[in-house]
Amino acid sequence: MNAGIVGSTGYGGIELYRLLANHPYTEKCIMYTSSQQGGAYSEVYPHVSDLMDDPLRDVEEAEGIDTMFIAAPPGVSAELTPLLSKKGIRVIDLSGDLRLKKSGEYEKWYGRTAAPEEMTEAAVYGLSEINREKIRNADILSNPGCYPTASLLGLAPLLKHQQADTGSIIIDAKSGVSGAGRKAGLGTHYSELNENLKVYKPGEHQHTPEIEQQLSEWAAGPVTISFTPHLVPMTRGILTTMYVQLNEPVSTESLLDSYRTFYENDPFVRIRKPGNYPQTKEVTGSNFCDIGLKVDERTGRAVIAAVIDNLMKGAAGQAVQNYNLMNGWDERTGLKFVPMYP
Amino acid sequence: MNAGIVGSTGYGGIELYRLLANHPYTEKCIMYTSSQQGGAYSEVYPHVSDLMDDPLRDVEEAEGIDTMFIAAPPGVSAELTPLLSKKGIRVIDLSGDLRLKKSGEYEKWYGRTAAPEEMTEAAVYGLSEINREKIRNADILSNPGCYPTASLLGLAPLLKHQQADTGSIIIDAKSGVSGAGRKAGLGTHYSELNENLKVYKPGEHQHTPEIEQQLSEWAAGPVTISFTPHLVPMTRGILTTMYVQLNEPVSTESLLDSYRTFYENDPFVRIRKPGNYPQTKEVTGSNFCDIGLKVDERTGRAVIAAVIDNLMKGAAGQAVQNYNLMNGWDERTGLKFVPMYP
Amino acid sequence: MNAGIVGSTGYGGIELYRLLANHPYTEKCIMYTSSQQGGAYSEVYPHVSDLMDDPLRDVEEAEGIDTMFIAAPPGVSAELTPLLSKKGIRVIDLSGDLRLKKSGEYEKWYGRTAAPEEMTEAAVYGLSEINREKIRNADILSNPGCYPTASLLGLAPLLKHQQADTGSIIIDAKSGVSGAGRKAGLGTHYSELNENLKVYKPGEHQHTPEIEQQLSEWAAGPVTISFTPHLVPMTRGILTTMYVQLNEPVSTESLLDSYRTFYENDPFVRIRKPGNYPQTKEVTGSNFCDIGLKVDERTGRAVIAAVIDNLMKGAAGQAVQNYNLMNGWDERTGLKFVPMYP
Amino acid sequence: MNAGIVGSTGYGGIELYRLLANHPYTEKCIMYTSSQQGGAYSEVYPHVSDLMDDPLRDVEEAEGIDTMFIAAPPGVSAELTPLLSKKGIRVIDLSGDLRLKKSGEYEKWYGRTAAPEEMTEAAVYGLSEINREKIRNADILSNPGCYPTASLLGLAPLLKHQQADTGSIIIDAKSGVSGAGRKAGLGTHYSELNENLKVYKPGEHQHTPEIEQQLSEWAAGPVTISFTPHLVPMTRGILTTMYVQLNEPVSTESLLDSYRTFYENDPFVRIRKPGNYPQTKEVTGSNFCDIGLKVDERTGRAVIAAVIDNLMKGAAGQAVQNYNLMNGWDERTGLKFVPMYP
Repeated sequence: MNAGIVGSTGYGGIELYRLLANHPYTEKCIMYTSSQQGGAYSEVYPHVSDLMDDPLRDVEEAEGIDTMFIAAPPGVSAELTPLLSKKGIRVIDLSGDLRLKKSGEYEKWYGRTAAPEEMTEAAVYGLSEINREKIRNADILSNPGCYPTASLLGLAPLLKHQQADTGSIIIDAKSGVSGAGRKAGLGTHYSELNENLKVYKPGEHQHTPEIEQQLSEWAAGPVTISFTPHLVPMTRGILTTMYVQLNEPVSTESLLDSYRTFYENDPFVRIRKPGNYPQTKEVTGSNFCDIGLKVDERTGRAVIAAVIDNLMKGAAGQAVQNYNLMNGWDERTGLKFVPMYP
Repeated sequence: MNAGIVGSTGYGGIELYRLLANHPYTEKCIMYTSSQQGGAYSEVYPHVSDLMDDPLRDVEEAEGIDTMFIAAPPGVSAELTPLLSKKGIRVIDLSGDLRLKKSGEYEKWYGRTAAPEEMTEAAVYGLSEINREKIRNADILSNPGCYPTASLLGLAPLLKHQQADTGSIIIDAKSGVSGAGRKAGLGTHYSELNENLKVYKPGEHQHTPEIEQQLSEWAAGPVTISFTPHLVPMTRGILTTMYVQLNEPVSTESLLDSYRTFYENDPFVRIRKPGNYPQTKEVTGSNFCDIGLKVDERTGRAVIAAVIDNLMKGAAGQAVQNYNLMNGWDERTGLKFVPMYP
Repeated sequence: MNAGIVGSTGYGGIELYRLLANHPYTEKCIMYTSSQQGGAYSEVYPHVSDLMDDPLRDVEEAEGIDTMFIAAPPGVSAELTPLLSKKGIRVIDLSGDLRLKKSGEYEKWYGRTAAPEEMTEAAVYGLSEINREKIRNADILSNPGCYPTASLLGLAPLLKHQQADTGSIIIDAKSGVSGAGRKAGLGTHYSELNENLKVYKPGEHQHTPEIEQQLSEWAAGPVTISFTPHLVPMTRGILTTMYVQLNEPVSTESLLDSYRTFYENDPFVRIRKPGNYPQTKEVTGSNFCDIGLKVDERTGRAVIAAVIDNLMKGAAGQAVQNYNLMNGWDERTGLKFVPMYP
Repeated sequence: MNAGIVGSTGYGGIELYRLLANHPYTEKCIMYTSSQQGGAYSEVYPHVSDLMDDPLRDVEEAEGIDTMFIAAPPGVSAELTPLLSKKGIRVIDLSGDLRLKKSGEYEKWYGRTAAPEEMTEAAVYGLSEINREKIRNADILSNPGCYPTASLLGLAPLLKHQQADTGSIIIDAKSGVSGAGRKAGLGTHYSELNENLKVYKPGEHQHTPEIEQQLSEWAAGPVTISFTPHLVPMTRGILTTMYVQLNEPVSTESLLDSYRTFYENDPFVRIRKPGNYPQTKEVTGSNFCDIGLKVDERTGRAVIAAVIDNLMKGAAGQAVQNYNLMNGWDERTGLKFVPMYP
């Protein structure tokens, strides 16, 4: 099998390369770019010197590719996916272009023209643990956003078991800076972000409707949430802290048991013991999503903490997990990294 | 006036020294310690070489002190304050010992014996902007915790104006590591915390009852909150993100106006414009508390973000602000720092 | 006295504002910019909200200014200084434009046209501790670079006492990222620099001739050095580690004594005790230069470590120190900050 | 093959586990500790939950182990190695106990009793690229220190080709904090190290004689160096900047060519192009040593920069590389990681 990476010069692209370079069933990995064609990939990223010195190519000339990963800015995938599909190339899209089923929602939150609804309908939402069966048969895969992955995996058992007051859900999310990509700007300038912590786009982040869309499906009715992202002075990692009013009292232990059962066949989701909460560093470089929680009897709320590496389970790792599923391989193929600690 | 600092070798102590060293009405500043007596202060902290080479002293021999700042671990102040008061020394206590009026609450949350209730009754809670008049007449001042300061200043206008559904309050708090003090341990080991983010003590942090005590007073009825602290890989700064269900719809602009009016005579509280949210670095080294907020019409919630430097407005800075008030000086005396940026 | 800041939107500019805002003999401080005129300074830097909401102005309309600080990119000062001088305004230039006496050197290392030599001749090199008397009479002051300040203060006693083999000098310099300024680019992108350390421009940095020019003057003969700068993942601070072959054996203690004597009347230079070496955090936010050293008997070399805050003693702090000297004030005026620690 | 890790709870130990867990020829990996026996490894390191929940064991009960990795504090290996050897277990020692051939040197620099010289004589120094043939036949392998690895690989071609003035060598070394291990103390306390840079033990670090021993062998005569380590606010990574007076003029290009030829069969050493210098992040998580250099014609010195991940090529990675060599496997086995970037 040959794979291609569109947007290979971004952080999603380089992380995909890190995974595919050692993926046992992927023979070749071709790097595409819209902006820096001709130069060697190792000129863009000297850390792959001697490993990947191939020139960057133009996707229009893509040939012999079985699966194309698209890790490009908004708008690229909406245009490119139909062309690739027509050529019989499977697409795994890491952008937000194909995630929202209703084009009105996309246009409202992303502020740009949506992909045609027939394409977003055709795209399978690749939250691997939840949609595994559909993913196995997908030709167009829409890979979830980083925040939605950590949020939805942390909420799924509660929602699917109807234990949550669906009007009460608050997600306070914190991300490392690599989530903002490689494009330089004052907002990602070292001296501005180091030793600094900030909230951004409260109630306005484009991942909000993606989370709501999935929660609404589980709740069988519209769910509106508060979602507030923060930028934390570190490179990798997302921690979502979620607050949910419980419909009925339940103990921390019992809720953890129910989470553990829910995810018992999911190799990349780990449930912590009572009193133990996950830290972002505990999943760095790996595809794990670790979840801890506490039921606060004083307030009747569950407080759930979920962590992922935003470039792995939040992007490239989950993309490769889906690539494995789409090809009938063990979903852990090429992903058996022990987290890098410290 | 002469001031003393008990617990001078901790981070609260060294920050107090930084402020008092240039305080125009403070003649001498004497450094006390329970553990490292005799050595020069500059041996503990070489950065004050040539500035403060005096030996560290035993507080039992304190003499000629007008105001004693206590920046010591739990339990010290409960014992020391009555002895100092008897000598006619004013006390400004930065620990949690005198903050909770009900000893049962202290014992439940701190897990140790409380100070006598007559002492906690005598102590004035030093949230400067709110209790300014009482503070002017205080002889024993209980300086607020870092998290409570950022939380309460961010919530006061909403609560005092009865705009909040008091059962809905969620405080998601994030702190830099200096809040954990100078005592070394695995939990504050560089390689464990760097590039890491974690939640700790959700629903169990000892600042929870301190916040609830004040909110309950404002609400004229018991208020129970969700309070979740996080440790962020930076040295200084606290950001509290607060979620409150509003009793009545209000616009962001109008709520910001009401905050601005509420704090119009408070030189250390700054209210941001709509769409602008404070960052921790924007108050570093200063005594400011900056507040931004957004009313989310979709959910009917206000999302409020407040930032402070945890060692300044969250500890030493507010202590000096209170010291100024207790002595009838302009509350900005010795505190006119422009935040250090970047 | 009224002061102006050209290049006020950069990091040198905002640090100058931090100092001048509380400088007791500076009545007004006017902010100039070439690029963002009209907007309020607090829109560029929200951390000065309520402190400096004045609009940014065009320097061509400068009026009523006694001293102009120029903290602008290369080339600005060369053009602006003569115009300001003609108006009788004293100039303190923080750029490299006026530092090199020989225009050929400037053109070689900076790669651009030099200022006229009569102007660079007129400019006094503002290494405060060394040139104090000349500075008192200066009308045009060329403020030293950050690396040269830490390097020269660390080497001056050795060179002036003829103890150094002047052909042996190696300066391995390390800087925080704020030295690169506020202009965003991939080279200062958070995710690229965080958890990273790099060498840049070895043997080619434009501060090399500035250091050599001064060393040559002290040595009364041409001195050529190895100078290698590094970028360290922190915002502020410079540490220079210097290696010098000694002409004659001397003990560490005795060399430290000689340094201490050399700087005994210099309030901003502190010499450490044997076995104690300065750390950058120990001068953060202050105007100190701290120096430690060891004579290595095995190699006959002195290893000297000097630290400064690059934005303070390395830029704005030394500029204000020189401003004080030029005006006949105590050189510590407005600079009595205790370092901010931690 | 079964492997054991003594000192498994330290950072060297957990990094060894990360590598051995996915090493294709290593069936079992048993975790030993002297201090925390009985508890599960995942209680010490929650990030290996579900991966390694085995209990920690006492090395005295070691059985069925083919190769024992010792990643313990000084002194442990000197005692343990003979016992293990007697049982026929191969030893790979990551501590400094067996590195110095002369016990006097060990005692002088480590300040403790040395291992018997017959044992240090028996131990093969595991600088893989240089001693590959000897390593293939080793039963006791002394794995190089982190600083010596980066220093020696950067200097080997120059020394072996007799191009260096051996009296002129200066190594200015910078390390991330994980090199200090997991034991908590004020010297590794987050708030003390973050936003800080310091020199430590100039001319006194115990890796100095290890470097000199190897350089002296290459130079066929005694070599004395200046070696100055620094602590940088990041977790992983070492950069050594080395200054060497050249015996004869040579161009940067030509010297780089000679380095490239020297290492042409070494998969883990990469030589950069002229004008390109390696950054620590470019090897993070991998076993690479990247080298760049410049010949400075002005001074006649070569400035060489070498980077490694201190826990990989500087410890566990090189240990596994040697383990592969000792067992006749491809030396890249289990080490084909693309560096993790960003």
